[in-house]
Amino acid sequence: MKAIDKLRANFPILFQEVNDEPLIYLDNAATTQKPKQVLEVLNQYYQQDNANVHRGVHTLGERATTAYEASREKVRQFINAHSTKEILFTRGTTTSLNWVARSFGDQFVEDGDEIVISYMEHHSNIVPWQQIAKRKGAILKYIELTDEGELDMQDARQKITPKTKIVSLTHSSNVLGVTNPIKELAQLAHEVGAIMVADGAQAVPHMPVDVQELDVDFYAFSGHKMCGPTGIGVLYGKQSWLEKIEPIEFGGEMIDFVYDQESTWAELPYKFEAGTPNIAGAIGLGAAIDYLTALDMSQIHAYEQAIVEYVLPKLQAIEGVTVYGPSTTANHTAVLSFNIDGVHPHDVATAMDMQGVAVRAGHHCAQPLLRYLDVSATARASFYFYNTLEEVDKFIDAVIATKEFFSHGII
Amino acid sequence: MKAIDKLRANFPILFQEVNDEPLIYLDNAATTQKPKQVLEVLNQYYQQDNANVHRGVHTLGERATTAYEASREKVRQFINAHSTKEILFTRGTTTSLNWVARSFGDQFVEDGDEIVISYMEHHSNIVPWQQIAKRKGAILKYIELTDEGELDMQDARQKITPKTKIVSLTHSSNVLGVTNPIKELAQLAHEVGAIMVADGAQAVPHMPVDVQELDVDFYAFSGHKMCGPTGIGVLYGKQSWLEKIEPIEFGGEMIDFVYDQESTWAELPYKFEAGTPNIAGAIGLGAAIDYLTALDMSQIHAYEQAIVEYVLPKLQAIEGVTVYGPSTTANHTAVLSFNIDGVHPHDVATAMDMQGVAVRAGHHCAQPLLRYLDVSATARASFYFYNTLEEVDKFIDAVIATKEFFSHGII
Repeated sequence: MKAIDKLRANFPILFQEVNDEPLIYLDNAATTQKPKQVLEVLNQYYQQDNANVHRGVHTLGERATTAYEASREKVRQFINAHSTKEILFTRGTTTSLNWVARSFGDQFVEDGDEIVISYMEHHSNIVPWQQIAKRKGAILKYIELTDEGELDMQDARQKITPKTKIVSLTHSSNVLGVTNPIKELAQLAHEVGAIMVADGAQAVPHMPVDVQELDVDFYAFSGHKMCGPTGIGVLYGKQSWLEKIEPIEFGGEMIDFVYDQESTWAELPYKFEAGTPNIAGAIGLGAAIDYLTALDMSQIHAYEQAIVEYVLPKLQAIEGVTVYGPSTTANHTAVLSFNIDGVHPHDVATAMDMQGVAVRAGHHCAQPLLRYLDVSATARASFYFYNTLEEVDKFIDAVIATKEFFSHGII
Repeated sequence: MKAIDKLRANFPILFQEVNDEPLIYLDNAATTQKPKQVLEVLNQYYQQDNANVHRGVHTLGERATTAYEASREKVRQFINAHSTKEILFTRGTTTSLNWVARSFGDQFVEDGDEIVISYMEHHSNIVPWQQIAKRKGAILKYIELTDEGELDMQDARQKITPKTKIVSLTHSSNVLGVTNPIKELAQLAHEVGAIMVADGAQAVPHMPVDVQELDVDFYAFSGHKMCGPTGIGVLYGKQSWLEKIEPIEFGGEMIDFVYDQESTWAELPYKFEAGTPNIAGAIGLGAAIDYLTALDMSQIHAYEQAIVEYVLPKLQAIEGVTVYGPSTTANHTAVLSFNIDGVHPHDVATAMDMQGVAVRAGHHCAQPLLRYLDVSATARASFYFYNTLEEVDKFIDAVIATKEFFSHGII
């Protein structure tokens, strides 16, 4: 048994047929599958330890609290945060980014301030900033992209100015498959006194990430895109900022004293975690981190690099297929957006699904990017460490068959 | 096999020993246990259908979307909402109440307006209103309680005036175990042009709830307190209000068009659900609703009434024990807060845990209520339909033993 087969055996969901064809799941940028190890931890929690956290002195409550806080420590280690005080559990990347925009934005953004994002952002890293800009009279600026779909660093240096209060950029694009030089961008931001926010939803699952090395002020990611459960995510924030900014949600757990007309807040990280958290979700995310750490994030990254080196030239070589993003594999994650000439991407995805291949089609929550690329939609195949080169071959065959089908009416 | 034994067999977590004693789990107001049926649905989702929702045209994406939206319909039926457009999935009650406070509050509350809550509210139904009152210059008023710990309806009629913009009250108290006449309160609110918000966290799991019958404008509850997973909750809102108020979180899924500087919102209910939702959580909540519906909410309510009729007099009869809340069982849920004279409630909970009995101790996220009752903390036993009368007997024995232990030094 090859190593990849042994690994895939932990993901029984992959071994099914859809439309009478073996499933090839290439929608990992949307969500990833969960290994048995994560589901076992979830089941164990619910079957043995389930209780509310922090508030109980009884045995189950203590066990649940210990497991929940152990997960926070796992997250801290995984992204090398300085302290667990800097790790906030949220519902996901979207909530994390909204919290930064709302809290930091309401408190520190003023009329005429500038917020710098880019044309490759996901809506979750655009719309919250539009809202704060609108509320505060700030200006939202977009960094341009190069012809290769990479961030134009020359334009970044021009757009980030002493007027800039916030720079918020994706670490890896969910459409173009490029990874941005966040460390360098954080330096540019800090030089002008701005904070650096990074959307790590497409990075943390696929490469080693060190928030201290990147020197970001806030960093957001989701559990469900990294083998964890749905409904759990993380907002990392530097302790100095988290101490300064106000919480977004108010209620139990996040308070110290509640007087009739006013309240005081608990210490970090609890100040931001109002109400019963997604306890099982956090514990499941901890299990996912254990699983990924055992595989080794460097090796996951290297394996996905090998996949992209294998698939990109093959996809580019198909006549009538346009691939968006970098034309070389040097700075290319295993996310490939493409179109087949004259075929609507939804039809591409439907035809590929008939062949068992799950790819996504649409605007990928990145309408400004698609306008920038001058396309209304794309198809997108996104790979993870459990995908095989044989699946890549079948994916390429399916693209060719889809193209032929819409040219000739046969599949 | 008695019916209760058959039912309890679905909760293997209940059959364990803690501190060498059989577990008696009486912390159901904090969180409830999950039956096998819910865990099976969660596992089936993750092992067969896991994919992101709404965005995919592939088979798994369609299956996940169908299951997620089917859960929304289950929630709609369960609380008899008019339309699934009125059912928003949130992280839990706290998030639901924060959304109403933030969205309705920022949009409609003005300087001098009054917000009416009561002294029996959970922090999650206090602190969000303090915040909006502070931001908008509104006045936060508390309805008094009767000596029996019930809402003083005479005071309610005086506090709810033409200046009132919002009335927000708990449906059932998490400390006193009383249920408020929400329908009558909604009438009072509507007569003066205010909206009625209800915190249903302690009501929906325990009795039939019909939001149209109650005529509430917003209603909030949590999945984990009703046999569902952690990290999922519901905000019901009347369609007319949900159409008027602005979303709180911004990102993918909740938009229609994203232009560079502004965006338009999707139709209800999607307008409020930014980003990847807690898909498994929502599906698990649907399974919990199936389970509760099969048991029949009226029967659950009747069974819990029988428990409180059995336990309340026994607890009241113990000399040196003070029970808070109504002295009769007529309007008493199976939530019992009590203290043993001269013993700190944390010591009570610890001593009871040594006897296998899980009760909670503290301020129960209701500091204003505890100040009102002039106690710093209480112990709390909260029952659910899977608790037995034999467990009640052991609970009473444990209270007596705990009292004896702290009087005489023996247990």
